[in-house]
Amino acid sequence: MIQVGVNGYGTIGKRVADAVAAQPDMALTGVAKTRPNYEAEAAVRKGYPLYAAIPERADLFHDAGIDLAGEVEDMVMTADVIVDTTPSGVGADNRELYERYDTPAILQGGEDADVADVSFNARSNYDLARDDDVDTARVVSCNTTGLSRLLTPLIESYGVEKSRVTLVRRGGDPGQTSRGPINDILPDPATIPSHHGPDVNTIIPDVDIDTLGVKVPATLMHLHSVNVTLDEAPSADEVRDLLSAESRLFLVPEETGIDGTGKLKEFAMDTGRPRGDLWENCIWEHSVSMEGRDLYLFQSIHQESDVIPENIDAIRALLDWEDRETSMATTDETLGVGL
Amino acid sequence: MIQVGVNGYGTIGKRVADAVAAQPDMALTGVAKTRPNYEAEAAVRKGYPLYAAIPERADLFHDAGIDLAGEVEDMVMTADVIVDTTPSGVGADNRELYERYDTPAILQGGEDADVADVSFNARSNYDLARDDDVDTARVVSCNTTGLSRLLTPLIESYGVEKSRVTLVRRGGDPGQTSRGPINDILPDPATIPSHHGPDVNTIIPDVDIDTLGVKVPATLMHLHSVNVTLDEAPSADEVRDLLSAESRLFLVPEETGIDGTGKLKEFAMDTGRPRGDLWENCIWEHSVSMEGRDLYLFQSIHQESDVIPENIDAIRALLDWEDRETSMATTDETLGVGL
Amino acid sequence: MIQVGVNGYGTIGKRVADAVAAQPDMALTGVAKTRPNYEAEAAVRKGYPLYAAIPERADLFHDAGIDLAGEVEDMVMTADVIVDTTPSGVGADNRELYERYDTPAILQGGEDADVADVSFNARSNYDLARDDDVDTARVVSCNTTGLSRLLTPLIESYGVEKSRVTLVRRGGDPGQTSRGPINDILPDPATIPSHHGPDVNTIIPDVDIDTLGVKVPATLMHLHSVNVTLDEAPSADEVRDLLSAESRLFLVPEETGIDGTGKLKEFAMDTGRPRGDLWENCIWEHSVSMEGRDLYLFQSIHQESDVIPENIDAIRALLDWEDRETSMATTDETLGVGL
Amino acid sequence: MIQVGVNGYGTIGKRVADAVAAQPDMALTGVAKTRPNYEAEAAVRKGYPLYAAIPERADLFHDAGIDLAGEVEDMVMTADVIVDTTPSGVGADNRELYERYDTPAILQGGEDADVADVSFNARSNYDLARDDDVDTARVVSCNTTGLSRLLTPLIESYGVEKSRVTLVRRGGDPGQTSRGPINDILPDPATIPSHHGPDVNTIIPDVDIDTLGVKVPATLMHLHSVNVTLDEAPSADEVRDLLSAESRLFLVPEETGIDGTGKLKEFAMDTGRPRGDLWENCIWEHSVSMEGRDLYLFQSIHQESDVIPENIDAIRALLDWEDRETSMATTDETLGVGL
Ligand SMILES: NC(=O)c1ccc[n+]([C@@H]2O[C@H](COP(=O)([O-])OP(=O)(O)OC[C@H]3O[C@@H](n4cnc5c(N)ncnc54)[C@H](O)[C@@H]3O)[C@@H](O)[C@H]2O)c1
Ligand SMILES: NC(=O)c1ccc[n+]([C@@H]2O[C@H](COP(=O)([O-])OP(=O)(O)OC[C@H]3O[C@@H](n4cnc5c(N)ncnc54)[C@H](O)[C@@H]3O)[C@@H](O)[C@H]2O)c1
Ligand SMILES: NC(=O)c1ccc[n+]([C@@H]2O[C@H](COP(=O)([O-])OP(=O)(O)OC[C@H]3O[C@@H](n4cnc5c(N)ncnc54)[C@H](O)[C@@H]3O)[C@@H](O)[C@H]2O)c1
Ligand SMILES: NC(=O)c1ccc[n+]([C@@H]2O[C@H](COP(=O)([O-])OP(=O)(O)OC[C@H]3O[C@@H](n4cnc5c(N)ncnc54)[C@H](O)[C@@H]3O)[C@@H](O)[C@H]2O)c1
Repeated sequence: MIQVGVNGYGTIGKRVADAVAAQPDMALTGVAKTRPNYEAEAAVRKGYPLYAAIPERADLFHDAGIDLAGEVEDMVMTADVIVDTTPSGVGADNRELYERYDTPAILQGGEDADVADVSFNARSNYDLARDDDVDTARVVSCNTTGLSRLLTPLIESYGVEKSRVTLVRRGGDPGQTSRGPINDILPDPATIPSHHGPDVNTIIPDVDIDTLGVKVPATLMHLHSVNVTLDEAPSADEVRDLLSAESRLFLVPEETGIDGTGKLKEFAMDTGRPRGDLWENCIWEHSVSMEGRDLYLFQSIHQESDVIPENIDAIRALLDWEDRETSMATTDETLGVGL
Repeated sequence: MIQVGVNGYGTIGKRVADAVAAQPDMALTGVAKTRPNYEAEAAVRKGYPLYAAIPERADLFHDAGIDLAGEVEDMVMTADVIVDTTPSGVGADNRELYERYDTPAILQGGEDADVADVSFNARSNYDLARDDDVDTARVVSCNTTGLSRLLTPLIESYGVEKSRVTLVRRGGDPGQTSRGPINDILPDPATIPSHHGPDVNTIIPDVDIDTLGVKVPATLMHLHSVNVTLDEAPSADEVRDLLSAESRLFLVPEETGIDGTGKLKEFAMDTGRPRGDLWENCIWEHSVSMEGRDLYLFQSIHQESDVIPENIDAIRALLDWEDRETSMATTDETLGVGL
Repeated sequence: MIQVGVNGYGTIGKRVADAVAAQPDMALTGVAKTRPNYEAEAAVRKGYPLYAAIPERADLFHDAGIDLAGEVEDMVMTADVIVDTTPSGVGADNRELYERYDTPAILQGGEDADVADVSFNARSNYDLARDDDVDTARVVSCNTTGLSRLLTPLIESYGVEKSRVTLVRRGGDPGQTSRGPINDILPDPATIPSHHGPDVNTIIPDVDIDTLGVKVPATLMHLHSVNVTLDEAPSADEVRDLLSAESRLFLVPEETGIDGTGKLKEFAMDTGRPRGDLWENCIWEHSVSMEGRDLYLFQSIHQESDVIPENIDAIRALLDWEDRETSMATTDETLGVGL
Repeated sequence: MIQVGVNGYGTIGKRVADAVAAQPDMALTGVAKTRPNYEAEAAVRKGYPLYAAIPERADLFHDAGIDLAGEVEDMVMTADVIVDTTPSGVGADNRELYERYDTPAILQGGEDADVADVSFNARSNYDLARDDDVDTARVVSCNTTGLSRLLTPLIESYGVEKSRVTLVRRGGDPGQTSRGPINDILPDPATIPSHHGPDVNTIIPDVDIDTLGVKVPATLMHLHSVNVTLDEAPSADEVRDLLSAESRLFLVPEETGIDGTGKLKEFAMDTGRPRGDLWENCIWEHSVSMEGRDLYLFQSIHQESDVIPENIDAIRALLDWEDRETSMATTDETLGVGL
């Protein structure tokens, strides 16, 4: 059993904790939190051991009637691996702590690429993280994860000459009440290319990709408007077949009457997905089109959850515990990936 | 076992079906649907027998590879009671069908009050529906349900002189992509009082209540800004105690850091609620205030789910199957009402 | 001619500057700005003398090719009165500067009441600011201005026993792209009463008013859901007549088909209003209703502009330049108040 | 003087009427309206002769105290040209009326291309409409107008190999309170290409363009995420120079601090633009980038107004009244095009 500690229990952290708890070969050492808020309350109800992320604030937990299992250092000491899901930038600061105890660590996409020995996407470069010299891996952001999963099979099957993607991004997560915009469509960043293209290159070094970022007043999912100029010219149906064979790509069927992310999440909830999570890229099946060698499609990306299976696989890769196929299959089966 | 058929499988219907399936004393005869869309697909995955709501469209289901258990008339014939969860106005048209087979029926709050023999709220007037002469009951709307649950204990404990409520309503449900407004705050209706006050009087005939309706660009929950002039002048703490003793009122604790409906639904999902449903009125604990005999508070109402326990209780009341306490306790326990 | 300097050239400041420039008895000394952004650019096009609000940043203006008339201290020295329209809290810091040069100053509603000798609303308490001892006046916030204008004639004509108001507030102004919420209805503040009631009491000391604040994802205007228990029981038509006789109250006629703030601002723009500004409280005519002695109505308040005429009148009151009727009439006529 | 009648007085029609009234060589015969709503009221205030678009409803105008100049047929008879700005599809029905009186007519982009003899964009194909055989012209939609204006100079200067554009479209205009979505990012249409590309080909027949449509909860402007593979490889600065030389393209300068459409419209209003209209494509200057021969940029398009100068030019072209340069210069100068 791999002992896994989760440092930072927010949007990503709580999902990683649940996913770890569902794995046959992992045990959740505990989760480290900064404050006894509603997420702490929910963790307590699930029986997750809680560690104080900021020792000086331990009293706050006691005042709230919450028992602590210790401080974050205790968790780092005990665990075989830490998944750091603190806010952007905090992960970089935490590295020193993990090094002190020689605990391998997985960081998230909000960190710069050089925070870790490798950037990670299970489908694209699992084996890199298995290397003996690699002690830290960065699971790339929700958007980069979505693009890597899509481009990898296209590169393998047809070759990619160039990719151009407009990322229409949600302004904030559903619980982030202070984020905007309320009524605007923002070029964000206004300069081109956005950082997303270079971030894809940390996973797929030599793919030629230009990305443009837009921000809009919606909270549920991002939408990628994708163009890929392929080396070959398969039919749209062939591309659909290729993509639907991938376990982490879901082709949203036209006949379901799902017209957007509201109904998509509704479907996820109707089928019993925890929190309505959509771990898969949701590719709009009837959008997949070929014009000459130009592939076009739309994909919706659930920012809060698509990186969760990747974090689980990253644990196994980093500890050289399983090979890619076995790990991905186990992760997919235990979580229920595949709609 | 009560055989329950659900006619109309949308936002309310699918939740009623799941709740029926969870009851020890009920069995789901099936659900009637008009089209083989994503909700039908989810019903199939759950193993719910599907009936064609519109017989001429049965072929659409066959084409989509979905087996039908029959037509809606078959379901009405077989079931002991029908819960009609079709869109506003359709329920009234369906009454004749239920009468033809002498099947008691429960209708929803989108219908006019005179569509049914009684209007129903479990906490307020359960016993009325037990009457032998009563064959149909209308579970009042999400907003009226929320107001009835709140006013009833206040009337019982302190007496209510007058109530004034502003209902800040969500523009549409999360999946309703064509509803607006996008960027407006609409008096809706602009005339005062809105229909909500009179609708409360179908449940609590002689309470004096004036309501004002507003519509805003949000999808998650309604917010009620409530004023109740009581006959007595209890302290705010006494009112909080009174309200928190009610199983279907949830007092959102300040220290959880929950500041709105986004985080509220997040909490519901974190604790494993199906679809993130909030069956309870969510009363903002720190909003409960007394100024003289004037009680003020905010409550958030989850339009998609607060009527679900009421529909279950209405079944038992209409068939005179259990008394109020037993029914409500069973419903609450099987669903997990109470946060 | 009154020489008027405007310190802080943002949403409120630029409107005050335009309004000053339109007065027959005032001249715009200039406006002080912190940065050479698009608003500075627009000021330059209008020929307004620009002063550096932060002397150390003067170079930024030079780099942007903008000539400065001097530094803010020069403007304070030259002007007969300063209208301070800096962000909340900055005005308090600026007081010392105005005192140093003995320049009377008008501050805004974002400041605490004790920042100035009096709080001001033209219709309600103009004469207080004319007192010799009064050197500073605070024009109360958009919401307090809207409530004061409404309550004053009601008090005068019928007497007010108690007022209860729910303020459904826009999340941010149209240009404030980083403000939320995106999809939520927030009790804000969740505690009751909100600060708005006490703020009304700085203008009308002994009116009994309880206010509740809500925040929603819209940018155009606030909406007040108003209840006033009067001492008398006039008919709704009498109240409508009373209110429509007030120059700064506009009763939105039902037959215009205007259903919300989008169309309201459209109408303002169609009639040539600069920036589509609505200086008047916009009371929904068909919402004005009486239930016994309880008056109900909805009013929409254009946060960006309703305080503008008040600032102009405050200048004349503070300098004891004109009486109330004359000042308000001049302001209304020059701006075009009254739709 | 050209006598111009405007049939359909809504978002586009009222702007066309104002623009006609501002031309030295045109006179406004009048405007035809269906109902006496707030827009009719504003037209009356401007002194525009009103005609009943639907004769049977003439009484409604009389009841509202509005004098009519006649019925729509009278206007069609009197005018030298009609600008039809009725809702999509109605224009096609109206054609027969214009033919009956031999009155040349201009239709809008909501109509199918075959509704008129030519599709029109002043910069791209002005002369086609001057042909003797041409009696009707269709001013293409806001989006197609924006794309035609951008592509034409690029084609002329560098040649265009292929263009790929994602159109992130506003869900509704600010006054359209019933349009959504509230919280979604919709592929719309989900199939690719959207109709926008083929519509561009009605103006520029042989440009190779693929378009993708997205719909989001915002009302102010559309945003185009543009990629153009050029035949040559100019520098980004050269492209900026080329584009800024076009009178109907406005390059939004980075140093203004304008980050989105909220502040952009604010700037338009600050500079005195009627209704805050932005007749120009608003190209984000710092977004203009070259990667090899691939040009990228963002442009915001004000859907309510960018077609207005085009309608004015279309009048002169259709009547063969002036050449392109003269017409465009007159239109630009009288309206104040160019920020
Ligand atoms: N939310 C998304 O959409 C998303 C998607 C993919 C990747 N990510 C990345 O995942 C990381 C976490 O993001 P999130 O959205 O879960 O953030 P979050 O704010 O929801 O959660 C972060 C948690 O870390 C806690 N925290 C703060 N400082 C801490 C410290 N010093 N030690 C321990 N815990 C601390 C916070 O209290 C919070 O509970 C970021 O790098 C982010 O960029 C986020
Ligand atoms: N959604 C809410 O917020 C809410 C809350 C409380 C009460 N209600 C009430 O519940 C009722 C249902 O509302 P909903 O939101 O679930 O609507 P919905 O549109 O989500 O679902 C209605 C379902 O009925 C189906 N249907 C349509 N015609 C039918 C017919 N003739 N026979 C059988 N099925 C038919 C539709 O296809 C759809 O699946 C309405 O009366 C509504 O006012 C809704
Ligand atoms: N916007 C509204 O809805 C509204 C309505 C009524 C009252 N108010 C009040 O008016 C005041 C101004 O608000 P606003 O919305 O115009 O703010 P704003 O941010 O639009 O404008 C304030 C301006 O002051 C400038 N500034 C900042 N520091 C300064 C300094 N030290 N010296 C000079 N200028 C400085 C800023 O650069 C900005 O241009 C606040 O007290 C606010 O509460 C605002
Ligand atoms: N609004 C935009 O963003 C936009 C942009 C570019 C082009 N267009 C096109 O311009 C045309 C008009 O659009 P709009 O947005 O101005 O619509 P609108 O609805 O704002 O205005 C249309 C007006 O026509 C009136 N009308 C309806 N039937 C009529 C009839 N039979 N005779 C005369 N008048 C009638 C309506 O009452 C309304 O006042 C459409 O083809 C549309 O596609 C609209």
